[in-house]
Amino acid sequence: MKIKVINPNTTLEMTKGIEHAAKSTARPDTQILAVSPKMGPVSIESFYDEYLSIPGVIDEVKKGEQEGVDAFVIACWGDPGLQAAREVTDKPVIGIAEASVYLASMLAARFSVVTVLPRIKTMLEDLVDSYGMSKRILNIRCTPLGVLDFERDPEGGMEALRQEGKRAVEEDNAEAILLGCAGMAEFADSLEKELGVPVIDGVVAAVKFAESIVDLGKKTSKLKTYKYPEKKEYVGVLENFGQIQSTIK
Amino acid sequence: MKIKVINPNTTLEMTKGIEHAAKSTARPDTQILAVSPKMGPVSIESFYDEYLSIPGVIDEVKKGEQEGVDAFVIACWGDPGLQAAREVTDKPVIGIAEASVYLASMLAARFSVVTVLPRIKTMLEDLVDSYGMSKRILNIRCTPLGVLDFERDPEGGMEALRQEGKRAVEEDNAEAILLGCAGMAEFADSLEKELGVPVIDGVVAAVKFAESIVDLGKKTSKLKTYKYPEKKEYVGVLENFGQIQSTIK
Amino acid sequence: MKIKVINPNTTLEMTKGIEHAAKSTARPDTQILAVSPKMGPVSIESFYDEYLSIPGVIDEVKKGEQEGVDAFVIACWGDPGLQAAREVTDKPVIGIAEASVYLASMLAARFSVVTVLPRIKTMLEDLVDSYGMSKRILNIRCTPLGVLDFERDPEGGMEALRQEGKRAVEEDNAEAILLGCAGMAEFADSLEKELGVPVIDGVVAAVKFAESIVDLGKKTSKLKTYKYPEKKEYVGVLENFGQIQSTIK
Amino acid sequence: MKIKVINPNTTLEMTKGIEHAAKSTARPDTQILAVSPKMGPVSIESFYDEYLSIPGVIDEVKKGEQEGVDAFVIACWGDPGLQAAREVTDKPVIGIAEASVYLASMLAARFSVVTVLPRIKTMLEDLVDSYGMSKRILNIRCTPLGVLDFERDPEGGMEALRQEGKRAVEEDNAEAILLGCAGMAEFADSLEKELGVPVIDGVVAAVKFAESIVDLGKKTSKLKTYKYPEKKEYVGVLENFGQIQSTIK
Amino acid sequence: MKIKVINPNTTLEMTKGIEHAAKSTARPDTQILAVSPKMGPVSIESFYDEYLSIPGVIDEVKKGEQEGVDAFVIACWGDPGLQAAREVTDKPVIGIAEASVYLASMLAARFSVVTVLPRIKTMLEDLVDSYGMSKRILNIRCTPLGVLDFERDPEGGMEALRQEGKRAVEEDNAEAILLGCAGMAEFADSLEKELGVPVIDGVVAAVKFAESIVDLGKKTSKLKTYKYPEKKEYVGVLENFGQIQSTIK
Amino acid sequence: MKIKVINPNTTLEMTKGIEHAAKSTARPDTQILAVSPKMGPVSIESFYDEYLSIPGVIDEVKKGEQEGVDAFVIACWGDPGLQAAREVTDKPVIGIAEASVYLASMLAARFSVVTVLPRIKTMLEDLVDSYGMSKRILNIRCTPLGVLDFERDPEGGMEALRQEGKRAVEEDNAEAILLGCAGMAEFADSLEKELGVPVIDGVVAAVKFAESIVDLGKKTSKLKTYKYPEKKEYVGVLENFGQIQSTIK
Repeated sequence: MKIKVINPNTTLEMTKGIEHAAKSTARPDTQILAVSPKMGPVSIESFYDEYLSIPGVIDEVKKGEQEGVDAFVIACWGDPGLQAAREVTDKPVIGIAEASVYLASMLAARFSVVTVLPRIKTMLEDLVDSYGMSKRILNIRCTPLGVLDFERDPEGGMEALRQEGKRAVEEDNAEAILLGCAGMAEFADSLEKELGVPVIDGVVAAVKFAESIVDLGKKTSKLKTYKYPEKKEYVGVLENFGQIQSTIK
Repeated sequence: MKIKVINPNTTLEMTKGIEHAAKSTARPDTQILAVSPKMGPVSIESFYDEYLSIPGVIDEVKKGEQEGVDAFVIACWGDPGLQAAREVTDKPVIGIAEASVYLASMLAARFSVVTVLPRIKTMLEDLVDSYGMSKRILNIRCTPLGVLDFERDPEGGMEALRQEGKRAVEEDNAEAILLGCAGMAEFADSLEKELGVPVIDGVVAAVKFAESIVDLGKKTSKLKTYKYPEKKEYVGVLENFGQIQSTIK
Repeated sequence: MKIKVINPNTTLEMTKGIEHAAKSTARPDTQILAVSPKMGPVSIESFYDEYLSIPGVIDEVKKGEQEGVDAFVIACWGDPGLQAAREVTDKPVIGIAEASVYLASMLAARFSVVTVLPRIKTMLEDLVDSYGMSKRILNIRCTPLGVLDFERDPEGGMEALRQEGKRAVEEDNAEAILLGCAGMAEFADSLEKELGVPVIDGVVAAVKFAESIVDLGKKTSKLKTYKYPEKKEYVGVLENFGQIQSTIK
Repeated sequence: MKIKVINPNTTLEMTKGIEHAAKSTARPDTQILAVSPKMGPVSIESFYDEYLSIPGVIDEVKKGEQEGVDAFVIACWGDPGLQAAREVTDKPVIGIAEASVYLASMLAARFSVVTVLPRIKTMLEDLVDSYGMSKRILNIRCTPLGVLDFERDPEGGMEALRQEGKRAVEEDNAEAILLGCAGMAEFADSLEKELGVPVIDGVVAAVKFAESIVDLGKKTSKLKTYKYPEKKEYVGVLENFGQIQSTIK
Repeated sequence: MKIKVINPNTTLEMTKGIEHAAKSTARPDTQILAVSPKMGPVSIESFYDEYLSIPGVIDEVKKGEQEGVDAFVIACWGDPGLQAAREVTDKPVIGIAEASVYLASMLAARFSVVTVLPRIKTMLEDLVDSYGMSKRILNIRCTPLGVLDFERDPEGGMEALRQEGKRAVEEDNAEAILLGCAGMAEFADSLEKELGVPVIDGVVAAVKFAESIVDLGKKTSKLKTYKYPEKKEYVGVLENFGQIQSTIK
Repeated sequence: MKIKVINPNTTLEMTKGIEHAAKSTARPDTQILAVSPKMGPVSIESFYDEYLSIPGVIDEVKKGEQEGVDAFVIACWGDPGLQAAREVTDKPVIGIAEASVYLASMLAARFSVVTVLPRIKTMLEDLVDSYGMSKRILNIRCTPLGVLDFERDPEGGMEALRQEGKRAVEEDNAEAILLGCAGMAEFADSLEKELGVPVIDGVVAAVKFAESIVDLGKKTSKLKTYKYPEKKEYVGVLENFGQIQSTIK
């Protein structure tokens, strides 16, 4: 099967890291297609970045329809555009935040998220609440680092995660740690060994869930909320987004 | 004062209707600047349209910073991009769904929304829930009409609203009716007379709230969640969105 | 238009402060009628005081019907008698706690309340929960001061608010501060400058919302919950409250 | 022990019915003191009536301190003034709505309330929600009858309860029925036989809980929320309410 | 009347303590039958112990049907098997956690639980949430002690409760303390004196509630959720549990 | 890898059906070990059956530790004993209800459950609420059939599911249907074709999730809630359950 993993930001080094994580966990017969969109921000650290990454994400999902993709993973811990992506394809689309909280809830009774800049906290609180997980999440712990700091200085990034992860275990009594950014996959194993609790990277979780759902032959429900969007005119630099029904079926 | 009312879709006839509603309620010394974005869909009826309208909305908010705007209204009942808009300006930004539910809750104990196509229901349920209003909203009633149907055939639109509005009063016991689309302002007064309960158009509600907040001298909090976005590179057709801090301050 | 601002306690000095705040923000053509009831406590700092202030509040609302009042503001942060007041008039009635939380939620993602004695905390928690705002309110911070301490010793009051306000910003990460007592209006501007986040006084917020609602021509829904009360006999010192329908229509 | 059962309305016939119910269930050594306040409405069917009954309720609780009362029951299904009553005494105070929902939840997994006029529905919804029972309550069913209609025409009252009770069992699948008015005690046994599910009258429930709590030697916590109110001046017809601390201790 | 108090663990010394507490509060004409099951763990400190205590609890409830029992109390703060117990009898069955939270909510606005090992915290959080009491419970405070440590070393147990109880009052502002284990009854009075807030032992609370419900003539609703279980074959060491309908009616 | 699928009831025909479903979806290199416990009920249709199936479930999980099992699936839609099972092993344990709701939420915005006897409804409501899914589940629809009726009369079972499934789609607007019993796997494909929305069988969902989690190398967190149970004495027919730590590590 072919799984398209979309890194919603345009930093290709990060996309490579995500690809590496995805491939390391995918089954031999699973083809991983890891991409960054053709438009949008180099990193996502605000509602502004989040929303502006979505056209690119949607564009990649639409292209995936012609690329023979069987399932999509949106590899940013805000799950940007997830519901819109489900509208433009009938293939399963999985967000890594979503996959992380569901996976964690099958392994641990209570858990904490460790993530990037403090300004992101409200966004993630509302996100996990929308997944019904508010009661299980003890804390969303922010580091002072931005998304690309983890690329530029992996050792510093690891140290920041280690510190907040330890606090999560000791102060929150977190029984699992969720890494709240797609660029943190490489730290998961070391952290898990150090902290003694499951440390969950959403990219690998989402890839495995995607494989499962494709195996099960399940597709996105097109009955109501996730029906294909109405075909209509789009203007300006987003003009091409008007072409919906014709390309998808 | 100058209030910029942004119709997130690109249908200028609808923008004119929104402008008309806004001006009819604004104070004499309030200047209404009603616009549609330079990019995006002609109507918003899905998560897809919603997210793809946001770049245009943000663009208009950013331009508003140089136009001497004192407050912004986002005139679509999904409040698209509201939180991002609050990041790129320190002027108040008000969504019409938000304004509607807060206004309604000061006039009625329980209420229902009447809106467009059924597929939109989930989106609006989650939206009002995010505003803490789930307990007060009895029902979200969809008509079979799309957004632009109300422009093309106002009589048919009025009839559809009348029917669902009556059901809301009789079956839900709704004590107020919220019109769940920015293009329904013209029907509010007639409906209110017929139904005997407050019928709330979000455009006028948001304009009045915007005037109030400007009078109070209040601005969006820039402490944490709504800080100006980090300056960073954007690529592709959204390239210009990288210019944040320089233009805004 | 004429807005009647009811200070539910009987301390006239405080009523004057409230009147001053209301007038400072009201439009030139808005007439502010600030009153204290003819009966009840000199301050409200318990459920006991709260409930015993309500007959006086209702009395003033009923008199307002003959005074040509267009809207009412209940100027105590417990919103005493708000729902009963909506029953005895069809003019809009706005509580300052209610106005505060709705205003704050249009300016800030998360906020804290700073208020009087610790015993009041439970009451305010339940109140903001009834407005659907529990998720947005980070903390309700009490000072050791009573309501009238802020009248007697404004400097001490300011210092107490400053301290708790700072803690709210630093420890809670509050992105706005709500002043949880009608007698704190005078401190709002200085605090806002010192703390760097919006500091919201409910009196001025409610007055502006009242103006807005009157401008919009909206009235309280009389369909069900807020119908005029059934006419019936009242006995004892509350005997006059039996006269309902006759005076109001 | 002595239990004071306060009927918050001033209709003495109804107080007698409540007294009769209370005595029929009280233990031989329990003295029931059933009273109506000296002030307030003849029936409670709105927020207006509810709030205006509270001064009389509080007055009776305060008098009870000198009458050697061991526990108080507030016999109206809105539990008017319950939290204030807990402030002015350290004896247990129990509301009949509160007692009803706790009793019901020990006997049945899901239940419905049957009560008086439709306008009361919102009030009761919010009340049971404040007791944490929203998930267990399937419906609040209103009859077209007012409180005193059940006194004037018991047969008509019984018929109305029977009809709504049947619908509750058949349509809601209610596993118990709660009688949402203190004047319905006399119908409970017949209804229970007819409907085949527990039918719960709050008056008898509250009396038994009061006996239990006195037996256990438990009193209202005076640590914080329910501390005695601050002593302060009261004016007008409520002047006497200023005398708090001196009479109570 | 006869109340059967079932200690779900098999430690007879603890059952005696529970019996002593129950008898000390029961009315003279109430017969207390305190038992431990014939099967199961010597203490309950995990989901494992909890679930494995349930067959024994159910067995004792079924036997109680032939022993002329009028009501049952399940004397473990996890309320193990409560809902199943309600299925196999029509007599009232009361859990001590349930009784504790309902009693506490009639005496105090907010409260904390003090209990045994930290691993139990999640279980109790979910339990009190299922009773609708999450908003009222400030904290669930664990001691490092196991259930039987309180039997073996009562002084050490008292000291642990004292310390956490004090923290609950001082740090949580708990207005009542709930003792989260059936073996803590003996400490309640001393703790209450020391802490100055109601300290609630669930065993005595449940016994008094059971007496009340029997007095009221109320039984478990057999309409739907708590109908007698379907008669069916059981195999292995639980074979005897297949005999349901025949023994119970 | 080896996945042990535990059918908590003792009906071997049903276990075979479950085994067949599990094998049909498992990867070629996954070994499915499908078993029924050595003790317990032939079907689970009440809290009584549910709790009495748990000792057998736990027993099979404990045996699995010596059988080289990599992950466990509990194949009953009440997820009986799930949290206890997580205590006695560090291998992942997945309930089919849990797997169903998480899978459904990745494919559909809103969904309904179709299940067996009406008495089960409360149990399932509470279960899905504990998974944070109350907002997404529109209805839990019961058929008049018991668990084994679907074994005895598959055509009648299919017809009952078809009818309730259609109502779920047409009346609830359910965008996916969850089959609320482990014995319904065989109907999923036909139903999905007829209803036009995803129809989710929990057994296959849980097996695929189990494979994913084993692939990811994740284990149950043993930090706090799911620590191995304290070793202690067990008596009576459950005596063998005292042997915990020694057998597991």
